Amino acid sequence: MAADADGGPHPDGTANGADAGSVYPPPTNPMVTALLTDMYQITMAYAYWKAGKHEEPSVFDLLFRKSPFGGEYTVFAGLEECIRYAANFRFTPADLAYLRTVLPSTTEPGFFDYLAALDARAVRIEAIAEGSVVFPRVPLMRVEGPLLVCQLLETVFLTLVNFASLVATNAARHRAVAGPDKTLLEFGLRRAQGPDGGISASRYAFLGGFDATSNVEAGRLFGIPVRGTHAHAFVSSFLSLADLPERSLPRADGTRCDDFVSLVQGKLRQLKETPAVAGWFGETNESELAAFISYAQAFPRAFLALVDTYDVIRSGLPNFVAVALGLAECGYRALGVRLDSGDLAYQSKEARKLFRGVEAAFHVPGFGSIGVTASNDINESTLEALNKQGHEIDTFGIGTHLVTCYAQPALGCVYKLVEVRGQPRIKLSADIDKVTIPGKKRPFRLYGKEGVALVDLLVGDDEPPPRAGERILCRHPFLESKRAYVAPQRVEPLYHLYWAGDKTGKGVQPLPALAALKEQCKQELAAMRSDHLRALNPTPYKVSVTARLYNFIHDLWLNEAPVGELA
Amino acid sequence: MAADADGGPHPDGTANGADAGSVYPPPTNPMVTALLTDMYQITMAYAYWKAGKHEEPSVFDLLFRKSPFGGEYTVFAGLEECIRYAANFRFTPADLAYLRTVLPSTTEPGFFDYLAALDARAVRIEAIAEGSVVFPRVPLMRVEGPLLVCQLLETVFLTLVNFASLVATNAARHRAVAGPDKTLLEFGLRRAQGPDGGISASRYAFLGGFDATSNVEAGRLFGIPVRGTHAHAFVSSFLSLADLPERSLPRADGTRCDDFVSLVQGKLRQLKETPAVAGWFGETNESELAAFISYAQAFPRAFLALVDTYDVIRSGLPNFVAVALGLAECGYRALGVRLDSGDLAYQSKEARKLFRGVEAAFHVPGFGSIGVTASNDINESTLEALNKQGHEIDTFGIGTHLVTCYAQPALGCVYKLVEVRGQPRIKLSADIDKVTIPGKKRPFRLYGKEGVALVDLLVGDDEPPPRAGERILCRHPFLESKRAYVAPQRVEPLYHLYWAGDKTGKGVQPLPALAALKEQCKQELAAMRSDHLRALNPTPYKVSVTARLYNFIHDLWLNEAPVGELA
Repeated sequence: MAADADGGPHPDGTANGADAGSVYPPPTNPMVTALLTDMYQITMAYAYWKAGKHEEPSVFDLLFRKSPFGGEYTVFAGLEECIRYAANFRFTPADLAYLRTVLPSTTEPGFFDYLAALDARAVRIEAIAEGSVVFPRVPLMRVEGPLLVCQLLETVFLTLVNFASLVATNAARHRAVAGPDKTLLEFGLRRAQGPDGGISASRYAFLGGFDATSNVEAGRLFGIPVRGTHAHAFVSSFLSLADLPERSLPRADGTRCDDFVSLVQGKLRQLKETPAVAGWFGETNESELAAFISYAQAFPRAFLALVDTYDVIRSGLPNFVAVALGLAECGYRALGVRLDSGDLAYQSKEARKLFRGVEAAFHVPGFGSIGVTASNDINESTLEALNKQGHEIDTFGIGTHLVTCYAQPALGCVYKLVEVRGQPRIKLSADIDKVTIPGKKRPFRLYGKEGVALVDLLVGDDEPPPRAGERILCRHPFLESKRAYVAPQRVEPLYHLYWAGDKTGKGVQPLPALAALKEQCKQELAAMRSDHLRALNPTPYKVSVTARLYNFIHDLWLNEAPVGELA
Repeated sequence: MAADADGGPHPDGTANGADAGSVYPPPTNPMVTALLTDMYQITMAYAYWKAGKHEEPSVFDLLFRKSPFGGEYTVFAGLEECIRYAANFRFTPADLAYLRTVLPSTTEPGFFDYLAALDARAVRIEAIAEGSVVFPRVPLMRVEGPLLVCQLLETVFLTLVNFASLVATNAARHRAVAGPDKTLLEFGLRRAQGPDGGISASRYAFLGGFDATSNVEAGRLFGIPVRGTHAHAFVSSFLSLADLPERSLPRADGTRCDDFVSLVQGKLRQLKETPAVAGWFGETNESELAAFISYAQAFPRAFLALVDTYDVIRSGLPNFVAVALGLAECGYRALGVRLDSGDLAYQSKEARKLFRGVEAAFHVPGFGSIGVTASNDINESTLEALNKQGHEIDTFGIGTHLVTCYAQPALGCVYKLVEVRGQPRIKLSADIDKVTIPGKKRPFRLYGKEGVALVDLLVGDDEPPPRAGERILCRHPFLESKRAYVAPQRVEPLYHLYWAGDKTGKGVQPLPALAALKEQCKQELAAMRSDHLRALNPTPYKVSVTARLYNFIHDLWLNEAPVGELA
């Protein structure tokens, strides 16, 4: 069963629903239609149709040539959306009316009739599982079927895979640096590249290893946990304690603390007189204290305060502690503080010192381990630097750098014709990295001892699949001298069939829920050798072809490449 | 009248329509709902409501602190979408049902009732005109109204303005380097950050100075001209001339050329024997020739060929010329070639040389000025380098670098509370750039001789507006010694009222069509001194405050900032 296949309306509430009986809802973003494409797909479609080539059997590979962020791996994401797109691919009458206005008036009417009846039922899509760790040159998806319709899927498939995979990879890299025990929150919506840049980032950051998002709509659409407390505006909207209309707080045991405000003020006075924390502060900001009390009254079980509106050390932290001690006396445990500017390592250590001092002095068990969240322009390098300095942060809120993939804002997936009418096609280039591997082939992952991935091997469709225990010659696709024998302990075929034209989803791989994709990603990363994954000078993971495929490529290459003439 | 206000259904075909009588359709992307926000907006909303602060009059400024791409200016975009969002802002019952699941079970039911009835009719939005050239610290929008609802608009407003302004600025910068006479095409959909990253990029790149897009959906939604021809896959889908089912071509005069294929083959032979172009090539690739002929048959009036599938100089260009000569003989004028790899300057010059040689040798007037389009990973620096080397390119297709804003993929707009209950609020920071200017104020642009913009001046709402001819003291908002007298020839108030709660649009500034915004941008750029706009070491444009506002800021600052103690 496809995700979201419970037959309900499309989760975004639009009328853009799927066919009855289909397990494939339309793409999440209703703007992803047959017209969301490059104009040259339409002009090519007409030229194919005019030349009678539109139904020619064809095979396209979708692949990338270099992993992002200077790394050696990529997390594949976006597949579910591609399959939903294929399953719902149609030109509406309104689409065709628009196309009539942008194609020449000489365009034959039969072409529009053809498009009106077109869908992707004749297309077959095999792909690597979403959430997998993948490598350059190994096609992530193989799209087979009539030339014209396969061509028309290109742009959206690239748009859906490029950004999804980029964000998932970025998230996995942030997770790797932060370590498995930290809580990672995606906070990027406001800085994202448009509304669904934000929504997609929330979704695929979760897939790649984040724990939650601030994005409420992404929470609703994908079931991602949502998190959030308050901003500086909340703090500065209070002028003084006189702004608090209510002084009481219901205790956790159901009784009532009639004057929570005075309780907190008392705690603040006590704090000042406590040797363990003496000298920290003089007068704290009263409007900040009012804001914290008010927030605690609204969320006594989820009190997390942003402490840098005025001065973290002299005002924010002591105000927080006073409210947290008041809450403790009423039977609640404060969640913690959020730091959003300045020296996060130093501030977090000071906060921890204070919390521990308070635990000892006030005898509040667990107070020393109250949470510290940090959220100011954090990226991979900041995390690395914080790790080196030492810090006491439990939770990171990461926005801009994560969601816009600041370090490299685009992944360069391409979609290449590798076979037409049974004939292999090769795209030549002066740059070896841009030469495509022609013909129908499928990838296998070969594992060694202890379940570690050794190499990905591309095997021609006309060859027998590799088998565990066999000694297999793995060749670099282009460089003659690079080759090695491998005797894998286990061989895993990387392709699964995801679309064969049947909207009931029969006979194809189901599309797993987001949580399962997240788990897939985690397990795949765990099966990689750590030197392939490290941020600094990672070892390239080997992608090879069989000896037979190697010869096939090179025969074709020599055949197609023009012979130069030195003059 | 707002754009798209013709009362028809929402152009994306969803049921997400506007109210009857409203001139404000919903945001373009149906995913832009009340839930597209940060969770902390919702938790703050509850805390405001609990504290009885939800209706307190408040003023928020939306501003950025630094122009992107190392430049000194920014093009403001995204306003129309913000106003459409405000005009249609509502929580649906489904939204509220979801919020009930993510807020604590102790949340009072009255809060959800309040949200159910909430809209933005009590909000008032003044803003700088969309398409304007804007500068750091000058608030682009001023949002006034009840605290809770103004707070709830924050995240979407930032999401809508940040990326739109970033792309528009990026486009304007590319236009500045390319010069006014080149044709600039946006080709970025496949590399964009998700589907509406692509759609937004197409829209705002057009606003910022591009001429057309490859993105068909953006063409339909916004009336942007769409452009496109064919890809490498089209060329490699042909195996030989035997692939052409049709040899004829209707001539421009209505008669028929029965064997266009032979005509082109003849031209190719003639070319080889022509002294002016002799030595260029031996055998050209036959499958490429077949593809070009086929494309010309489909688009005889719009023949533009991608010439780098095999070898630009030895195959692509001569094949193109043969087909173009054939077309000329049939009464058509070929549009040109597209170069997509290699040394674009060199190839374009070779192409021009060939076209001119052919014009002379074959007596085809205008052949020498046939178009050359280039489209391989182009950005500001590439354009700059091409200008220096000299080239013969007429049209640039720009994708990745434009649409993902590769050089700086995020703009950092913020949304700051500057007044509540009539009291000015200031956000302090150790970093002067992050200190906000408190209170209600409005910006004016002061122009000197010849209509050149001299300075932007922020004036307190309680002060008289500056007047042309007056000698006005303009002070740096934070640095005491920076100040200057200005006697402007002309004073332009930058704010206009765009939303005052009335969906019929009465009494407020209309939202201009995209073409008008594009023109606004062009004119504003023309009114700037060129040293503010240049790419290398641009002169900062001055943003000032009045003497009175200066004193007001500094009194408040001293009042709020804690006094340090040296120990």
